[in-house]
Amino acid sequence: MAGSTFGTQFKITTWGESHGKGVGVVIDGCPAGLSLCEEDIQAFLNRRKPGQSRYSTPRKEDDAVQILSGVFEGKTTGTPISLVVFNENQRSKDYGDIATYYRPGHADYTFDMKYGFRDYRGGGRSSGRETIGRVAAGAVAAKLLAQLGISFLTYSRSIGPVSISKTADELLQEDMSTLKQQILSNPLYMPEDNASTKAQDFLDDCIAQQNSAGGIVECIITGVPAGLGDPVFDKLDVDLAKAIFSIGAVKGFEIGDGFGVASATGLENNDAFRMKDGKVTTATNHAGGILGGISNGAPVIFRAAFKPTPSIASTQQTVNKSGEEIDISIHGRHDPIIVPRAVVVVESMAALTILDALLCNMGSKVENLKKLY
Amino acid sequence: MAGSTFGTQFKITTWGESHGKGVGVVIDGCPAGLSLCEEDIQAFLNRRKPGQSRYSTPRKEDDAVQILSGVFEGKTTGTPISLVVFNENQRSKDYGDIATYYRPGHADYTFDMKYGFRDYRGGGRSSGRETIGRVAAGAVAAKLLAQLGISFLTYSRSIGPVSISKTADELLQEDMSTLKQQILSNPLYMPEDNASTKAQDFLDDCIAQQNSAGGIVECIITGVPAGLGDPVFDKLDVDLAKAIFSIGAVKGFEIGDGFGVASATGLENNDAFRMKDGKVTTATNHAGGILGGISNGAPVIFRAAFKPTPSIASTQQTVNKSGEEIDISIHGRHDPIIVPRAVVVVESMAALTILDALLCNMGSKVENLKKLY
Amino acid sequence: MAGSTFGTQFKITTWGESHGKGVGVVIDGCPAGLSLCEEDIQAFLNRRKPGQSRYSTPRKEDDAVQILSGVFEGKTTGTPISLVVFNENQRSKDYGDIATYYRPGHADYTFDMKYGFRDYRGGGRSSGRETIGRVAAGAVAAKLLAQLGISFLTYSRSIGPVSISKTADELLQEDMSTLKQQILSNPLYMPEDNASTKAQDFLDDCIAQQNSAGGIVECIITGVPAGLGDPVFDKLDVDLAKAIFSIGAVKGFEIGDGFGVASATGLENNDAFRMKDGKVTTATNHAGGILGGISNGAPVIFRAAFKPTPSIASTQQTVNKSGEEIDISIHGRHDPIIVPRAVVVVESMAALTILDALLCNMGSKVENLKKLY
Amino acid sequence: MAGSTFGTQFKITTWGESHGKGVGVVIDGCPAGLSLCEEDIQAFLNRRKPGQSRYSTPRKEDDAVQILSGVFEGKTTGTPISLVVFNENQRSKDYGDIATYYRPGHADYTFDMKYGFRDYRGGGRSSGRETIGRVAAGAVAAKLLAQLGISFLTYSRSIGPVSISKTADELLQEDMSTLKQQILSNPLYMPEDNASTKAQDFLDDCIAQQNSAGGIVECIITGVPAGLGDPVFDKLDVDLAKAIFSIGAVKGFEIGDGFGVASATGLENNDAFRMKDGKVTTATNHAGGILGGISNGAPVIFRAAFKPTPSIASTQQTVNKSGEEIDISIHGRHDPIIVPRAVVVVESMAALTILDALLCNMGSKVENLKKLY
Repeated sequence: MAGSTFGTQFKITTWGESHGKGVGVVIDGCPAGLSLCEEDIQAFLNRRKPGQSRYSTPRKEDDAVQILSGVFEGKTTGTPISLVVFNENQRSKDYGDIATYYRPGHADYTFDMKYGFRDYRGGGRSSGRETIGRVAAGAVAAKLLAQLGISFLTYSRSIGPVSISKTADELLQEDMSTLKQQILSNPLYMPEDNASTKAQDFLDDCIAQQNSAGGIVECIITGVPAGLGDPVFDKLDVDLAKAIFSIGAVKGFEIGDGFGVASATGLENNDAFRMKDGKVTTATNHAGGILGGISNGAPVIFRAAFKPTPSIASTQQTVNKSGEEIDISIHGRHDPIIVPRAVVVVESMAALTILDALLCNMGSKVENLKKLY
Repeated sequence: MAGSTFGTQFKITTWGESHGKGVGVVIDGCPAGLSLCEEDIQAFLNRRKPGQSRYSTPRKEDDAVQILSGVFEGKTTGTPISLVVFNENQRSKDYGDIATYYRPGHADYTFDMKYGFRDYRGGGRSSGRETIGRVAAGAVAAKLLAQLGISFLTYSRSIGPVSISKTADELLQEDMSTLKQQILSNPLYMPEDNASTKAQDFLDDCIAQQNSAGGIVECIITGVPAGLGDPVFDKLDVDLAKAIFSIGAVKGFEIGDGFGVASATGLENNDAFRMKDGKVTTATNHAGGILGGISNGAPVIFRAAFKPTPSIASTQQTVNKSGEEIDISIHGRHDPIIVPRAVVVVESMAALTILDALLCNMGSKVENLKKLY
Repeated sequence: MAGSTFGTQFKITTWGESHGKGVGVVIDGCPAGLSLCEEDIQAFLNRRKPGQSRYSTPRKEDDAVQILSGVFEGKTTGTPISLVVFNENQRSKDYGDIATYYRPGHADYTFDMKYGFRDYRGGGRSSGRETIGRVAAGAVAAKLLAQLGISFLTYSRSIGPVSISKTADELLQEDMSTLKQQILSNPLYMPEDNASTKAQDFLDDCIAQQNSAGGIVECIITGVPAGLGDPVFDKLDVDLAKAIFSIGAVKGFEIGDGFGVASATGLENNDAFRMKDGKVTTATNHAGGILGGISNGAPVIFRAAFKPTPSIASTQQTVNKSGEEIDISIHGRHDPIIVPRAVVVVESMAALTILDALLCNMGSKVENLKKLY
Repeated sequence: MAGSTFGTQFKITTWGESHGKGVGVVIDGCPAGLSLCEEDIQAFLNRRKPGQSRYSTPRKEDDAVQILSGVFEGKTTGTPISLVVFNENQRSKDYGDIATYYRPGHADYTFDMKYGFRDYRGGGRSSGRETIGRVAAGAVAAKLLAQLGISFLTYSRSIGPVSISKTADELLQEDMSTLKQQILSNPLYMPEDNASTKAQDFLDDCIAQQNSAGGIVECIITGVPAGLGDPVFDKLDVDLAKAIFSIGAVKGFEIGDGFGVASATGLENNDAFRMKDGKVTTATNHAGGILGGISNGAPVIFRAAFKPTPSIASTQQTVNKSGEEIDISIHGRHDPIIVPRAVVVVESMAALTILDALLCNMGSKVENLKKLY
């Protein structure tokens, strides 16, 4: 069963385990003529690199990307772009212990059930390192989208019980470049210093108690033209749901008002259409920029809930492969929370989705064919 | 751009508009040898039929399904099963009015942006009638799954602000067939009479105020073997997210504890593995039956948030195709809430997803090939 | 296992058995805004209708197509186009005999091996009637392609041992509309009367001897813009090979000089590039319009070999389901040759392939995205 | 437009250019539990390595493969297998000349038309080096198939005008391991020494005249169980046609009697079913092991026609990018014929196809699901 490929026209295939020789991605279907170099990609990868604050694993991973194909004389050629990051900092240690039991909240047991055995070093294929390929590919997509006026604002909305107070609509009123800079320089990628301080206190407690925390990532996409996405199974929100839910540790996804719509009424939830500067717009954006699965030109807004890191040093109950109930305590260099490092993964998956939707939509009208042929 | 197909090995393609000649589905990849007749499918369709309580549209639609191919001498042949429901009860009325403006909360505007024009009769392709094809196909999938010991419990968890009090885990302690019967006989498909009564009061108010309501549907799948789903992009929860988010009006989706995980700690959220009757099990089920994207043998539990019906008789602001701001009021036979009728749609999409995952997983191990060849 | 869908962006799914309720096709991904009515499709279907000469089965099948969805006010809407032809002329006869043994050259035995049993009425899913869906969809594709200046010339190159003498290049020198008319009015769809006469004599002998014949269909596609097709697995010739080989009875496929290239030298086989009217062209067309899997602007030329109709009245040896060796003689209303009726099937599959390639190619360059967004 | 992926369940994605950093493949969907090491793969790659006779390019390429992921403790894990061969022997030379004009018979012009520019070093993405990824993946597939009793006999049937005299049926009477050894030790991979000697004389003439040659590769697959392949678009012969036609330089493909069927009669072409050792078999094998797109248990036999190497040192006419007609002569280290090195590529693509068909077919019957779940 193959499941490592994402996308229809802009298609990525990731490979690699956390403690194998490396991780990588092949991008197939990137339009020709995009200027691209390793620095473009490295900038994205650096946003998910560990060791940048005390809230991420102290492992030092340079995660230096190499472009192996698909770029010639500084431009994409239209052929597959193969990107690789070789693994460097695997501690040479005895994994035998982990091999014998099933860590709660991890995929150890399910891999054994599916495949008959597993690569028990680190998280194997379910490691967070798998997302390196996604982020590398996302960097390429985001660069192309920027040329079409489409950009992303992605941040931690909540860390454990601590949330920012501003709504997405309020953040959209601020100066974007200042806001982006503020987020990138915040250790938790939160757009409010006040909330960030409280969240750091909360995390310090978590760490002290050998526990871990979860949180919510929010993403706002601006500049998305109206008309993207398909009416039925390949709705734009479906593709985003698929993209974001495929990130390990995501347990919930919502668009616009999300679960809030369940207790709203039609009068409250409908976004009235209005004219603004001669163009159709909506007075509010409860829908999160998507109606009937198709973008309506308003900012696309979504959120994803991430579970707490399952690897904790506190004692936990589990069973081993011999079917004995045992107590374990997982030591090692684990993130007490994955939300901050997941922010760029969310942005990358969103960029891949939007670019694919743009490409898939090109033939929606006969007149589009007549423009190009 | 094609987007009306769902599934990899068990693949369905739906077609049809609300006011065209009919709606239907082609199922490709149904294993041969399943006993199947029109009554099997009709039973599922009847659960989404309107006009069964005062909380659904009074339109009378028989929605009688016909099997056009793929079944011979009472059994599926392995070739495409074409199912059709001809439309019968379209009022012959003047749609010219709707044709000229964009209804808030509907896909009118986005269809025009995407395709240049739209079938403005009813909801066109975005009508709830499109789900007839899904439910017809879901009936086939559910029948096959039942033979493998996999079954579904699907119900309204909340209607507007009114929720049931029992958790999914608590419901699982009850007698399943009694519970299913109770749900099917409840006008809102709620498993608690007390909550249902309050919800009906709430809906009566909504109707009186020419307003509409949303809600949350919950689904529990039991008997799912461990090992289904793929580690990366085609995780079982991803496929469920895609399946459920593709239902019109869904704005949020979550597995297990869902958004609740964001404020939980690792210690709280991890499900300890335990032995029970000689088999590996989990003491709790915060994960909703899926770890690392792969089923772990526990019940799969998920929820979806549905927005309030956008068609309401109250006055709303919008714009027309000439770019003028106007006031409208949408009359007609609309459901004040779609949640109860959506319950069987959710169950159908879940059944399609699980069966496809079973088929895709057959080749996960070399030993499986040796068993069959 | 699902296998009834063809195409990536312009995607068709066929369904139906020869003696079931009907046959049909769902087209998903047809660009919006194409004028389309049932007559457009019927014109194509009439070219494959039986009973038009003594060389096709005397069964009378009107094969009247109905459009069930996807067309509104005379134009395609961009949503799935469901087309159906209900079966009408199944003789009510006892099929019990056929059910018990395996006809040589038919799929009876292989269906039983794959699915455990089969729909033994007529050819079931392997009947030539399955091609009705392909031709109906091909008519839609061909109509759209005509608006982009792409057209098809398809004909019988050989019937049994009798071939036409002109090459494809020579036919391209003639007046196209006269030639097309000549082909359509020829009972064997041959573009040379002389060869057609000899072929008819040969077929008359075949019929007299209760035997059947095969032949070769050739197709020339003009107006294909340079740049269609992908370098590796989705080459334009690969997609054509897949399209044409999927027609029942095809046992060989070749592009340009085809098998002739095996004994040619590089000097003979290379097509020199030349300038003509300020444009790059090739002096010859041994390549059949495709280089490295991508169209070069020259006419695309290919051929397919069809086997003789397997159903013959002469006595044949076979086995029955009880494993006994028996002699059989197949009576009924069978075509002594399927080549003439297959001509429009070949053209239809070619049209579907070219349109899909046009759609898939729209995003090949960043500048194309900038033109549309 | 993405086109570098092949397969449905056993899915490969190739990447890399002839003069980039390397070439590789990602295999997704390989069943877990297959013993695999680099030597298994290297053995296949060595069969396509150049420089082993005077009929292939004197370039020395070690083509040493590395497994980067998907194998743990000597067994496949079920996750993506990333294989890479780094390029080593690119001559550092000035490609500027080739950059300015279009080589006849090459994809230079079509790449420019499609993508706006091209990687002009060597063949870029259309280089024969792209097949390294296919052969590496094919080695994995073939190893798994061998465990199921499926094996391949692949050889040069003709080189230019020189063909072997034995039919595939006759070769099947010989001792397989002796025959395979004979083919592997023959410089042209021909199974008849007599024909090989004549073919070598012919090639020596070609080389002396700065010309090149084509030929035909034949492949026999034994042990294929009955029931593989789907009735309509995903017939087993369609998948083989797609697989083989995707190899650069292939211009024709045929199954069983292939183009010969066009002039055969039904009586001649039908394969009578007979009983042998209590099993259903066919007295002849004109069908090449496939009926109605589904394997019938007989050996699968097909042929592919390869064009002569387009790169020749003789003077040729072409045009340059400025639109001027010029004369060129292509020097360098080119194969005078690619057929012998293509033999293992054909075998690899066939192995990939058969394994994918086995995986896709596992769910054809409900009873198969009951056996595994």
